[in-house]
Order: sequence, then C-alpha cells, then structure tokens
Amino acid sequence: MTWLDLPEDTGFGLENLPYGVFSPAEGRPRIGVAIGAAVLDAGAVATATGAPFAQLLAGPVLNPLLAAGRPTWQQVRRALVEWLTEPVFADVVRPHLHPRAEVTLQLPVEIGDYVDFYASEHHATNVGRIFRPDSDALTPNWKHLPIGYHGRAGSVVVSGTPIVRPTGQRKGPADPEPVFGPSVRLDIEAEVGFVVGAGSALGTSIPVADFAEHVFGVFLLNDWSARDIQAWEYVPLGPFLGKSFATSVSPWIVPLEALRSARVAPPARDPQPLPYLRGAEDWGLDLAIEVRLNGHRLARPPFAAMYWTPAQMLAHLTVNGAPTRPGDVYASGTVSGPERDQRGSLLELSWGGTEPLTLADGSTRTYLEDGDEVTISASAPAPGGSRIEFGEVSGRIVPAPDRT
Amino acid sequence: MTWLDLPEDTGFGLENLPYGVFSPAEGRPRIGVAIGAAVLDAGAVATATGAPFAQLLAGPVLNPLLAAGRPTWQQVRRALVEWLTEPVFADVVRPHLHPRAEVTLQLPVEIGDYVDFYASEHHATNVGRIFRPDSDALTPNWKHLPIGYHGRAGSVVVSGTPIVRPTGQRKGPADPEPVFGPSVRLDIEAEVGFVVGAGSALGTSIPVADFAEHVFGVFLLNDWSARDIQAWEYVPLGPFLGKSFATSVSPWIVPLEALRSARVAPPARDPQPLPYLRGAEDWGLDLAIEVRLNGHRLARPPFAAMYWTPAQMLAHLTVNGAPTRPGDVYASGTVSGPERDQRGSLLELSWGGTEPLTLADGSTRTYLEDGDEVTISASAPAPGGSRIEFGEVSGRIVPAPDRT
Repeated sequence: MTWLDLPEDTGFGLENLPYGVFSPAEGRPRIGVAIGAAVLDAGAVATATGAPFAQLLAGPVLNPLLAAGRPTWQQVRRALVEWLTEPVFADVVRPHLHPRAEVTLQLPVEIGDYVDFYASEHHATNVGRIFRPDSDALTPNWKHLPIGYHGRAGSVVVSGTPIVRPTGQRKGPADPEPVFGPSVRLDIEAEVGFVVGAGSALGTSIPVADFAEHVFGVFLLNDWSARDIQAWEYVPLGPFLGKSFATSVSPWIVPLEALRSARVAPPARDPQPLPYLRGAEDWGLDLAIEVRLNGHRLARPPFAAMYWTPAQMLAHLTVNGAPTRPGDVYASGTVSGPERDQRGSLLELSWGGTEPLTLADGSTRTYLEDGDEVTISASAPAPGGSRIEFGEVSGRIVPAPDRT
Repeated sequence: MTWLDLPEDTGFGLENLPYGVFSPAEGRPRIGVAIGAAVLDAGAVATATGAPFAQLLAGPVLNPLLAAGRPTWQQVRRALVEWLTEPVFADVVRPHLHPRAEVTLQLPVEIGDYVDFYASEHHATNVGRIFRPDSDALTPNWKHLPIGYHGRAGSVVVSGTPIVRPTGQRKGPADPEPVFGPSVRLDIEAEVGFVVGAGSALGTSIPVADFAEHVFGVFLLNDWSARDIQAWEYVPLGPFLGKSFATSVSPWIVPLEALRSARVAPPARDPQPLPYLRGAEDWGLDLAIEVRLNGHRLARPPFAAMYWTPAQMLAHLTVNGAPTRPGDVYASGTVSGPERDQRGSLLELSWGGTEPLTLADGSTRTYLEDGDEVTISASAPAPGGSRIEFGEVSGRIVPAPDRT
C-alpha cells in the first residue's frame, strides 16, 4: 500500500510506474515516473536518498538507464516501490511530486534506429485487399517472417506535437502525370512500440528467449501515413515520404516488468516459423487499444490478436547481425483485429476511402481533415484484477504550408 | 604554398583538407584533417592558437562543427589553410601532425538517420532487368522522383571494420520452403554519401537552391547487400535485413567546398521533374570511383552519370516536412555507368550470378567469398588541374557464426 492518496483504478498505481521525461514550469527536463495524477521527479529522489543509480536518472533522457540493463531496471523499480510505500520516505518524496497537469512531457528517449513492422495479419490482409486487389492479400513471405522496414528516427515526436499535413507527389490511376500538393489521404496507424534497453553488438543476434534482457518497455505510437504519397512511391523500395514526416509516441514508457499479467499466448502460427523465431519468451500482450477522432471513438484494436510477437520481431531484426543500441525503437505496425471496429487505420476503416465513416456528431470522414485530433490510448491487465494505463498519444493536424 | 613538405599529386593537398576522427597510439579520439601523409590534430591547433571555434573541434565526433553551419565551416577551412601556409604557424602546428599510418581512424560522425537512394538510372535499369525480367526495367515513378528508403544508422561502420556474413531467410523460385543460413549472395554497392551539417525543423523543407547551406561534405559508402535475403523479404515494404547488417564508410569527409571544381551538369532529365526538384544548385559531381576486390580492379563507376543530383535527393527527402539533424547521412545508391566495367555491384557485374567474373589472378566470382576484401576509392578534379582523393572504404568478409 502506498502512503499516497491514490484514486482507485487510477491506471497509474504501483503496478505501473511508467517512465517519462518532464519539464516543470521552470528548470531543466527531468526523469519522471507517473503515479496517480502526479509525476515523481525520480532523479531528485534518487539523489536525495543517495541511491547508487542516481546518475542514471539525471536526465534529460532515459538512455543511461536503458543502457544499464535489466538487473538495474529491477533495482530502480524496487526502489520506486519502496519510496512510495514506506512511510519513512514520505517526507523526502513529497516535495518531488508534481501535478501531471502542470508539467510538460518531453520525448523520453533519444531514439537510435526506428523500425516499423507489419505484424497484424488482419491489417496486412486488409491492406493487401485494398492496395493489390488482383493478388493474394498476403505476400508469400508474410507468414514466414515478420516483415519490417526502417522509419525515420528524427521524425519521432512526443504526443501533443502538431502534425503538419505533408506535401508530396501522388499519382492516381487516372492521373496522366504525378500531381504535387498536400496529401489528400492523410491517415493514422495505431501501433505499439518497444524500446530497446540493453543493446547488442554488430555481428550478434538476440534470440527469442533473450527478449526481456534487452527490451526495457512499451509505449504507443501513431505512425501518421500519407496514403497517396505512399502508394505512388513505395515500389520497389518501400514506404519513404508517405511515413517519414511524423511519428507520434506516448510520453510514458511502461516497463516490460509491469506487463507480466498482460502476457498471452499468440495466435496459432501456420506454418510453424523457422527455429530462430521460436523460444521461451514468445508471448503476446493483451493490450486493449482505443482510437478516438475529435473525441469520438473510431476503433478498439486488440493487440492480443497480433500474429508476430515482440520477441519474434526483435529476433528477426537482429538475426542478420544488425546491432541494437539503447534507445532503439521498433513498432508493431498497425494493430487491427478481425472485426470492423477493431481496425487501426482509416485506410481500413473507410476501406480505401470508399466507405466514409460517420462520427457520433454526424460528420463523416474517409481520411483526416485539417484540425482533426487523433488520440490513441491503451490499457492492460495488472495483478489483482486492476488495470494499468498507457499514456495517451495525441496529435492535431495543421494545414500544409505552401511549397509550390 | 604550404610550408609542409608535401608530395606532388598527393590527393590530400590544400585543396582537399577532409575531416575525420582519429585515435593516436594513446589518448582520446580527436578531430583530424588529412594533409599529405599526415593527419593534423585540428582541435589541438585550434586550442593552441586560441581559435574562436576550438570548442567545435574538441571531439570525439564532428557533429558540433556540422551543426555550426556554413559560415563557420568556411571560417574553419580558412584557418586550416592559414595554419598550413603561413610559416609563422609552423612551430605551433608541427607537433600536432601525426603520420596517418600510425593512427586509428574512427567513424567521424554520430549518424542520425541514414537514407539510401537509388539515383543511378543505369543501376536501376540493370536491377530491374535482373529482378523483374517480365516488367519494365524502371518502375513508373522512377523518373519522377528520387526513390529512397531508410537504412539502419546503427549499422554504419568505419572502413576496416570486419563484415560478418549475414544469416537469414532466403527462398529461391525452386525452393518449396524458405531456407535459413548464411547468405550465399553477398554483394557490395559502391556509393557516395552526403553528410548533413545544418539541420532543418519538422514541417519545413530544404529547396534545391539551399543545398550547400545544409550539406557539409561527401564520403564513400559500401552498402553491403545480401541479395538472397533481400529478394525474399523486400515485397512489399522494401529492403530490410538484406541491407541492415552493415554499411561501411570512408573515414574522411571531403568538404563540399573542396568539390567546386568537380561540379558537372547532370544528364538531361526527361520528363522535366516537378518544380520542387529544380533549382540553382542542381549539379552533379565528377567523381571517378574505383572498386577493387582483393586488389584486382572490378569496376570504375562514374558518379557524373547519376540521374538525380545530391540537391534533388535532399529536396525530395524533406519536401514532406521530414526534419534533418546534423550528422544525418544520405547516400546515392549504387553508382553504375553505362558500360559493363562501370557497374557498382556484383549483382550487375555478374548479371545476377549468371556470368562469373574472372579476376586478374585467374579466380572467378559471382558474389563475395569469406576472406574477400573490397576497397572503394575515388578522386575528383581540383583547381589547377590537380586531383583530390577520397579516403578509401574497405572491408573484409568474415564467416557467419552458427545461428541454428
């Protein structure tokens, strides 16, 4: 029990303790831990208590803590629980609690490489049917390996950052020449991201069984996508400008340790994957995601339905000897379930723009309009039947500047 | 005239002055400038002379200098020339010259994002014919935009780093199921890379005319490629593990300023590209590249033949509002010319493995064997009829570890 006065079902109780970086009204960015409606200045408390890991929490990013490895992550987590439960720490901790509503949250990690997978069978099937109606929905490789590609790490921004509508080339089947201008098919992708803590050297790989030694935590992503730009550019080298203009992430990284009660068996895989994609830590996560547009619920994608698991994605990413660094991020790709209201992108929800959605206020959408705000949230089971919340990732579309 | 005793045609004279990072036999990495057979400890001389930019050269990477912007790059270059030509500086400079043969060269830049383009029409045409013999060699978008994709920044290594043969999945047309194991089609890609200096903010773009305000310099890349892994994985999201295991770069970054005499008109473009791909700085570079395998010359790709120019690539990369950071790198893609001996990859030189090459020692190759060493070098015209040299990028293949 904590000595803090926490609301029941806060979603940010002792079972959660996600990490972020916040700026108080004045002063430098600090490493914080969300607890109830507050943020704990973890670096300040570590210094005040003489904790041996205080230097790892000095800020302004989580990378030193990430690099320290799993035994240290567990040590810090035990200390956080101790500070928040032992009354003897109340007086030293209390001055370092800030109301979350009064701080500004920052991008918590200096991101090395950002990889985006395509791990939902339902999403990949929908996209295949929409983009390539004359071919099989899934490409022949899809069930043999988690397909992925590198995104732009420098375009990853924290929740709340305005998203400028991207400009670029598009060419529909009826256009004789490519057209230049702001994207007219601006979309979202509701995704789950994984933050690498302990890295791995060039020429080595991370087996499925070693997943939890390397991955520090989990957050939410919105991989904004310009479908018109993407459709024209992506053959043969994959998505580029259709994705690279912005990727928003939630400000709180939920430690993998907090998600033990959320582990679920993945769907049956057929065919059986190659041996390097099997191992003891091949579990999925039962995260319930919700996507809202201007406050209206659009979809509830279930992360438990993902075909490829987080450990398989990392094993695949490194099987060729690619190195990883503390702060690398890889994301699941759009999370979509089998039901219509479980689709994590407007591309799927509007079936390629052919079936407009009607929002609760009576307005309709195929793709995003200027001024639209999209918010993605998620929760997961915690011990004792409670739930933990992920921080929301939110972004509002601002009009494209003139680039003619 | 320099007071140093430089060999004629050194390739590393006063017209060049490329930047790198070196470690002397003892002590921390330092920022160096190649001059003749020596490396000048530029940070030490800047400190000794009280130069206002000394802090930018404190090391261990070039990023602070990159971020400082073009007026500062020009100021530092003027100072380097002054130090090496005014006899009054000889006594202060001489103790900070190290024989290049006695130092270890490091990766000179902390790389943000790494983008690889596909800007050679000859290369793209060859690849299209080999990989997609039943389709048009060039995809419909190819002459409208410089196709590119993001590579893995964390896999970029300096020349001399051993290259571990990657392991992964492959599936030939005759294989009923994918096969797992070391790549059997390990290849090179001879490329030219561009190092971004001054960055650009999220939501803004860099017009062709602003190229030289943003790009600091040029180096050579070998984008090692596992063609069998790539062929199986790349549809629909592009190359991933077939490329992400390693990319080698030359240790010396030749300032854009040093390449004024190398500027050439690009080939005629038909159709005329969209307005955002036109502008005053739309020039190519007359770099003569040479690729050697175990000392035998394989190819002499001409960079002047590239269809898309460096300024067009950067304008395209940012037209959607993607930000750039000091230390971002983008590369040209394989440089191939129209002639058979001008092809920058073994894929092309051996025509998909069907036409083995015979080296000068009588041995034959389709793709790389363990122990093979590939070296790429280049030179460019300098003022007064002399030439400047790029540092070589070299790498030797070591066998794959057992990953079953």
